Amino acid sequence: MFEQMEWVKPTEIEARSMQIIESEMPKGNWTPGELLVVKRCIHTSADFDYAENLYFSDHAVEQAIEILKAGATIVTDTNMGMAGINKRALSALNANVHCFMADPDVAKEAKERGVTRAVVSMEHAGKLEGPVIFAVGNAPTALIRLYEMIQEGTISPAFIIGAPVGFVNVVESKELICNLDVPCIVARGRKGGSNIVAAICNALMYQIPGTR
Amino acid sequence: MFEQMEWVKPTEIEARSMQIIESEMPKGNWTPGELLVVKRCIHTSADFDYAENLYFSDHAVEQAIEILKAGATIVTDTNMGMAGINKRALSALNANVHCFMADPDVAKEAKERGVTRAVVSMEHAGKLEGPVIFAVGNAPTALIRLYEMIQEGTISPAFIIGAPVGFVNVVESKELICNLDVPCIVARGRKGGSNIVAAICNALMYQIPGTR
Repeated sequence: MFEQMEWVKPTEIEARSMQIIESEMPKGNWTPGELLVVKRCIHTSADFDYAENLYFSDHAVEQAIEILKAGATIVTDTNMGMAGINKRALSALNANVHCFMADPDVAKEAKERGVTRAVVSMEHAGKLEGPVIFAVGNAPTALIRLYEMIQEGTISPAFIIGAPVGFVNVVESKELICNLDVPCIVARGRKGGSNIVAAICNALMYQIPGTR
Repeated sequence: MFEQMEWVKPTEIEARSMQIIESEMPKGNWTPGELLVVKRCIHTSADFDYAENLYFSDHAVEQAIEILKAGATIVTDTNMGMAGINKRALSALNANVHCFMADPDVAKEAKERGVTRAVVSMEHAGKLEGPVIFAVGNAPTALIRLYEMIQEGTISPAFIIGAPVGFVNVVESKELICNLDVPCIVARGRKGGSNIVAAICNALMYQIPGTR
C-alpha cells in the first residue's frame, strides 16, 4: 500500500485535492465563486452529487460575501456545523456564529410545545440584531419555520443556506426556500448535513482576502 | 409544497427515517449490530454508498461495545466529529472524547517537523492511559501514522474507526488499517468525514442500554 501512495506536503494536500476534484467533476455553468462552493462541498464529502444538487439564487455568492464583510451573524441548527465553521475566518470578518440547539430553555420550550428544538431555535434567532445568515444543516423543520416566519413578516434573513439532510420532509423544505425572494444556496434533494453547511460557509468566507 | 409534506411527531422523525432507509437499502449480510451502524451512516449523509463501503472486522461491533462499556477514551482528529459525538451517551458510559488538533503545541510541532497536525495528534494520543478508540474522520496521515506506530509497537489501540474523507492517499490509508490485527470499522474508498465518524461512534454507543 505504501508504494502506491503519493507524497504530498501537508500544506499542499488541499490544493492537490481540489485539482483532482476539478478534473473529475462535470463541467457546469457556475460562476467562479459558485465553483469554489461546489468544489468545497465535494472536498468535504467526496460526493460528486454536489456538482448536481447545489442551487444558487442569482448573485448569491456575491451577496453572501457582502453580508459576511459587514460582520454578519451566522445562525446554524447544528453544533457540528458550528464546530466546522472556520473561527479565524469569522474573526477576521468580525462575524460570529451561534447555535441555540443545545440551550436548555430551547429544549424545554420545544418539549412543552411538541415542536422540534430547531423550530424554537429559529424563533430565538429572529430576535438577533444585524444581518443574519441562516445555515441549516440538520432540521427541515428549521427551514419550514423560517419559511413561515418570512411569510408572516416576523423574520427577515439576509441569506439562507439550506442543507438539512434526511428523509422526512427534507426535499420539500428546501424547495420552499428556493421559491422565496431571499438570497440562498440550497443543496436540493435529500443530501446535506453539518459538514456541507460548514463547507459552504467556509467556501464563502475564504473568497474574502485575509480570512485564511 | 406544504401539502406534500408528511406530518411526523418530532420524537418519531428518526424512527421514520430509519424505516425509509431500511426499505430502500440493499439487503446485506450484516449482523444486527452492524446494520445499526450502516443505517446511522446513511441517516447522517443520505448517501446509500455506506451500504457498500463499510468494512467491519470480525465481531467489531461487539468488541467496540465492550470497550465503550469499560469507559474508553475516543480520540478523534476532527473537532466537528467531536462535536457530533453524543455527550450524554459518553457520560452514561464514563467514556470521553479528545481531539488534539486545535492544541497550539500540536500545530507548532507539526510545522517544525513538516508533518500534518494529525500525525502529531496521534503521537500525543499514544501517551493516554486506558483503552483508546481512534476515530479518524479527516486525515489519512493520522491513519498512516497509527499504522506505523502499531508496526513499531509504540501504540496499541483498542479499536480503530477509519473514515477520513478525501482524494490524496485516503483509499490506501484505509486499506492499511483493514489489514491490521486491530478491531476496526472502516469506510472504504474516498468517502467518510466528521459526520460519519460521529455517526459510527453514536451507533455503537446507542446499542448499550442507558445511553439515550
